[in-house]
Amino acid sequence: MINIENGGVCFPKGFFASGIKAGIKTSGNLDLALLYSKEPARCFATFTKNQVQAAPVLYDKEVLANHNTINAIIVNSGNANACTGKQGYVDAAYMAELVEKELDLGKFSTLVGSTGVIGHTLPMKKINAAISELAKKLSNKNSELFAKAICTTDTIIKTGSISLQTAKGEIRFGGSCKGSGMIHPNMATMLAYITTDLKLPEDFLSEFRVMVNESFNAITVDGDMSTNDTCILLANGQSGVFLSDLSITEQSNARNALFELMKHLALQIVNDGEGATKRVEIEVCGARSKAEAMQIAKSIATSNLVKCALFGEDPNWGRIISSAGASGVIFPAEKLSLHFEDVQVVKDGMPVRAAQEKLAQIAKQKEYKVSLDLHTGDSKASVYTCDLSYEYVKINAEYTT
Amino acid sequence: MINIENGGVCFPKGFFASGIKAGIKTSGNLDLALLYSKEPARCFATFTKNQVQAAPVLYDKEVLANHNTINAIIVNSGNANACTGKQGYVDAAYMAELVEKELDLGKFSTLVGSTGVIGHTLPMKKINAAISELAKKLSNKNSELFAKAICTTDTIIKTGSISLQTAKGEIRFGGSCKGSGMIHPNMATMLAYITTDLKLPEDFLSEFRVMVNESFNAITVDGDMSTNDTCILLANGQSGVFLSDLSITEQSNARNALFELMKHLALQIVNDGEGATKRVEIEVCGARSKAEAMQIAKSIATSNLVKCALFGEDPNWGRIISSAGASGVIFPAEKLSLHFEDVQVVKDGMPVRAAQEKLAQIAKQKEYKVSLDLHTGDSKASVYTCDLSYEYVKINAEYTT
Repeated sequence: MINIENGGVCFPKGFFASGIKAGIKTSGNLDLALLYSKEPARCFATFTKNQVQAAPVLYDKEVLANHNTINAIIVNSGNANACTGKQGYVDAAYMAELVEKELDLGKFSTLVGSTGVIGHTLPMKKINAAISELAKKLSNKNSELFAKAICTTDTIIKTGSISLQTAKGEIRFGGSCKGSGMIHPNMATMLAYITTDLKLPEDFLSEFRVMVNESFNAITVDGDMSTNDTCILLANGQSGVFLSDLSITEQSNARNALFELMKHLALQIVNDGEGATKRVEIEVCGARSKAEAMQIAKSIATSNLVKCALFGEDPNWGRIISSAGASGVIFPAEKLSLHFEDVQVVKDGMPVRAAQEKLAQIAKQKEYKVSLDLHTGDSKASVYTCDLSYEYVKINAEYTT
Repeated sequence: MINIENGGVCFPKGFFASGIKAGIKTSGNLDLALLYSKEPARCFATFTKNQVQAAPVLYDKEVLANHNTINAIIVNSGNANACTGKQGYVDAAYMAELVEKELDLGKFSTLVGSTGVIGHTLPMKKINAAISELAKKLSNKNSELFAKAICTTDTIIKTGSISLQTAKGEIRFGGSCKGSGMIHPNMATMLAYITTDLKLPEDFLSEFRVMVNESFNAITVDGDMSTNDTCILLANGQSGVFLSDLSITEQSNARNALFELMKHLALQIVNDGEGATKRVEIEVCGARSKAEAMQIAKSIATSNLVKCALFGEDPNWGRIISSAGASGVIFPAEKLSLHFEDVQVVKDGMPVRAAQEKLAQIAKQKEYKVSLDLHTGDSKASVYTCDLSYEYVKINAEYTT
């Protein structure tokens, strides 16, 4: 059983963080964050697939194309540095350079993240003026400050940590993320930073990608992706433990711990979904492949009609089945079965008499699982979604540029 | 200039219709409709691509696989005959048979349509008992009764007609459709019936498909497709005019008239979108292909964030560009330009100083056009969408099965 605690990015050995007010946000809240490891950390990263990519995303990709270790990440909130053209790129590069100079690091050892309004260039004077305070404040006790300083419309900070005892010593994982709409292009969007003192092999990226797909990419608040989405894992090896030196069982436990932490962080984003009143797991099983299961689960999880029904606490199987049918995946409709938790509502593609009272009770829960079985194979996938409420419309209609 | 009038399915020569109360709807409203042409009419049809297809869709496809002329279409509202298994198919076939017997027609000369709640078998006794009244009421003055009897949650009936003078005589087009959510699986969904007394060639289906794609498939209320979506064109040739006998110009006019009628009907569905307060054309131009333009336009038109912004009367260019970027189509972000009507808000991928007052005025209009230019080619496509309002959530959250 994995025990997830509330430590954040500084929980693993050798990581330091800070968070300050640089005056980027008009609200006066924390808006500049820094994560630092003296020992260069192996860096694994995934970025938004949006065709319109913010300057920090373009900069980070450029850096990582030629470097696989990183010492620092600087993140500002309140301004996404997106749709800012060449000036945006220059500013992102300059932000990294400011950190490298301040911390006496080599060139291309720092990544940049930005989140906030689109279409405005960064207030570089303010950032420039704040760098020395930001660096001075670095401490291994500042996970929470870091978590706060990367937030925008989030109503809660999102952190998590796991420690694991192995025969080679203790290893630790920590992380923090932000986002309260899957996409919120004017307050763009999902940023996630994971740290570990475990030493990971160079080729860990493909594994990390799979984990991102089943955690951060398996949640949906409003079904889109932003210009700034970023998920970065830093492994600085300061535990002295190398993944490949562990026993097979311990390796599995370590991978599992990392994945559970990522899922834990991702689910906090759904919990904090704009206007969300409940979180529902949409599981699709009995599929021919995991990709098809995921495609159907996403189709259901992003359907406005399904999400309205979740809000209305209505176990509306018709909308779920129709969304599955509209997913583009081919399956025999007459084999479908559907459960709300352990109550079956559809069998062989047709409704069955269900325990109405129990069903109504489940639909009222803050968290529950809906499971659609295609009966065509043995693959499955889950997507975590939230409901579509009046509050969501209010938040997103009343925000004006 | 094409003049669209309010005539319906009986406007072209030789078409008769009726609509009665058979007791299928608990509300007691009209719920059984019949369309009839004594002369067999060439039939062109497109159906939902949803993997879960209602019994009437399965039945019609089966009939049309072997027959290309049709005399009648019977449609019930209040019950979708979807997710009803083998019994559903038997009932659909029996509905057609009842009409064929009553009107003394050959086997497989009648199609069936159903719309309403999912998962309940049809009340066949009631339909059986109503057939003779339904047939007796057939008249060429009943376009409106037909239009009413196919409605579910629609708040307005949707009809249209066009007549055209040609050197060979007058030709006429008429039609009716229903639908107030693009998908509304419990009140499933879009049905459209078009009639013409023009004689059309057997191979007209591919042309008809293109017209459906740019009319009924180019609208979105909530971005999904239902189990019952159907669009049927009947051409009975009673004008005595054959499309191929017309001059090239007249042929173009005839095609144009048919397309404009279909677009007119489709736009009425958007106007009647659940909770909609405004209708917006999302045009994507400068694309490498029409398919790519359509893919981007659909991505924008179905984005909840964009639709909330339309409701909030906020000319939120950031959300529009981000949705375009998330569409899956590859394009250079730095070339994008965006207009709200004739006011430019984005140039070379970056915001430009726009006339704020004029822009605010446009965002307040009941109807307007947003145009995104990719500057990568010369193809374009439009999708017509409506806003996402509190009322939409209310309608779809409060409906309970």
